[in-house]
Amino acid sequence: MKSDRKVARKVLSVLEGSAEKTPPVWLMRQAGRYLPEYRELRAKAGSFWKLALTPDYAAEVTLQPIRRFGFDAAILFSDILTVPEALGQKVTFTEGEGPSLVPVTTSRDFDTDREKWASYFEPVYEALRLTRAGLPPETTLLGFAGAPWTLATYLAAGAGGDEQKAAKLWAYRDPEGFGYLLDILGECIAFHMIRQIDAGADAVQIFDSWASGLPAPLYRQVVIAPTVKIVAAVREARPAAKIIGFPRAATQAGYEDYVRATGVDAVSLDTAAPMDWAAKNFGCAVQGNLDPIALIAGGAALDRAVDTILEQTAGKPHIFNLGHGILPETPIAHVEQLLKCIRG
Amino acid sequence: MKSDRKVARKVLSVLEGSAEKTPPVWLMRQAGRYLPEYRELRAKAGSFWKLALTPDYAAEVTLQPIRRFGFDAAILFSDILTVPEALGQKVTFTEGEGPSLVPVTTSRDFDTDREKWASYFEPVYEALRLTRAGLPPETTLLGFAGAPWTLATYLAAGAGGDEQKAAKLWAYRDPEGFGYLLDILGECIAFHMIRQIDAGADAVQIFDSWASGLPAPLYRQVVIAPTVKIVAAVREARPAAKIIGFPRAATQAGYEDYVRATGVDAVSLDTAAPMDWAAKNFGCAVQGNLDPIALIAGGAALDRAVDTILEQTAGKPHIFNLGHGILPETPIAHVEQLLKCIRG
Repeated sequence: MKSDRKVARKVLSVLEGSAEKTPPVWLMRQAGRYLPEYRELRAKAGSFWKLALTPDYAAEVTLQPIRRFGFDAAILFSDILTVPEALGQKVTFTEGEGPSLVPVTTSRDFDTDREKWASYFEPVYEALRLTRAGLPPETTLLGFAGAPWTLATYLAAGAGGDEQKAAKLWAYRDPEGFGYLLDILGECIAFHMIRQIDAGADAVQIFDSWASGLPAPLYRQVVIAPTVKIVAAVREARPAAKIIGFPRAATQAGYEDYVRATGVDAVSLDTAAPMDWAAKNFGCAVQGNLDPIALIAGGAALDRAVDTILEQTAGKPHIFNLGHGILPETPIAHVEQLLKCIRG
Repeated sequence: MKSDRKVARKVLSVLEGSAEKTPPVWLMRQAGRYLPEYRELRAKAGSFWKLALTPDYAAEVTLQPIRRFGFDAAILFSDILTVPEALGQKVTFTEGEGPSLVPVTTSRDFDTDREKWASYFEPVYEALRLTRAGLPPETTLLGFAGAPWTLATYLAAGAGGDEQKAAKLWAYRDPEGFGYLLDILGECIAFHMIRQIDAGADAVQIFDSWASGLPAPLYRQVVIAPTVKIVAAVREARPAAKIIGFPRAATQAGYEDYVRATGVDAVSLDTAAPMDWAAKNFGCAVQGNLDPIALIAGGAALDRAVDTILEQTAGKPHIFNLGHGILPETPIAHVEQLLKCIRG
């Protein structure tokens, strides 16, 4: 793969273990509501799914922050809830309320026909191909998927934000049935990751956004074990696949176990995780972990926060990013300040 | 103080460093909505503040779970937002919506008259005296207060649950002004803790419920430094004071720094924090950390979760508790199961 590239893709180089003097940078949710050009296209598309599943729209939204800021990676504009949709669970996005779906209590009725999965996901792959065609050659293209546990929290609750209660209850009361749910989700996720790579993604990130608050035995059961299976399945099919894991707000021991067990190429750290400790101890690339609120604050606090991360990761393979997604009220001038602070 | 007691108070013994074969147990929010007798008195009182600030009501609500379950500690029924109220910031509780207050952007207008503080808090102290009179002699009585950072998140946002955004912005943009806010809050908190001890509390717990998600430098500035000052102020006034700290969902390094810097007698751990690591390394008593959702789940999962914690803390000073407050939908039978599992 590497020999096909005329120029080095910096994010990919870091994922291959290289420590860059000026780290590459991209921001979670960089294609999003803080950009006027995003809001314009979002209004034109009408619905969130229309925006995400129309290849021209999705590719255009993905390219917008690259044109404006020259980030080192583009991450495909899509949503982690495509996987439940591929499995036959209809997801509705209501403006200002987030996603909702019919809560599930069994995974028996899921649609496991891989041809249907492929046909549902096809617009995502087409968007990846269009994005790659529009990207500068030096820009890394990232695909992504939600992790089984995080998707299960939405499926069990029928919505986000309930502190994982419904999924935890299911996992505690019916570990076998819940394990089966995680397995089916994992199969669909691995399927989707492999095909994103085939469609041109240089690497894929697994978002386990609700990995916090789990007692260690439950964390091993619902976060680590399913992710181990996914990484193995993807690597078996595509041995050169580069994978970034993000068990958001896991404990330090939780991050450490995750890296060791899954063998991901990089781990993305949340805002509170000590970056110096991770860069020193993990033996893989680290990504993160600026506080999105520091990016809203701007000024001297932003410079200081960026400098701290740069000092903590000096000489180590590091991809600069936020610890969580960029927030809609983030001033564009602060993103410019951030890039100036990193790139000089 | 100890010589006044005819019988040992087990929670207090653990705070003094003793490892009990059967650990003492109490539950955060044990006086609360999962109890029918609580809901009855809550309805009778009409408003939340009426319930919390009428000494007879508050004492009765505090005693209810002791009568029903024989917990080893009673924690006074009150609220962390008494401190903002004492400082002149009116807090309103709306059924099902949580607290609201007028967001503050300066601490200049706070009421710093200690006599007014004492008179505002007087019903709390009277409730402590009434509770002590009604408690079995072997039951430890706990007072508590919210920590400056957690109170600041409410004051800055005018409500809870916004992921600390407003308080973080204030702290980043105006560290000096925000430091002054934390100082005034800390003075009022220390004042209130000392007087709770004088009114009969055997120990006091400091709740820093929103200590998660903070980059290490900010955590040191807004969680550790203000708590160090409070513990020092309370210990200077009452050298024998026993203090439990709860920087909820801090990182492991964050918990460790907190214990070392503040010198609390015990640290309460959230659901995800590794209890075995804490019990081995902290050199102080540990409290926690059963997942409140495991308590709702009941059955074999509950037994297993309790046993794990008991194994992890065997031979160490440990107070059994939840990792977060008990939830309203918790079945009373599961609390009974929990106690049977601990006490045999």
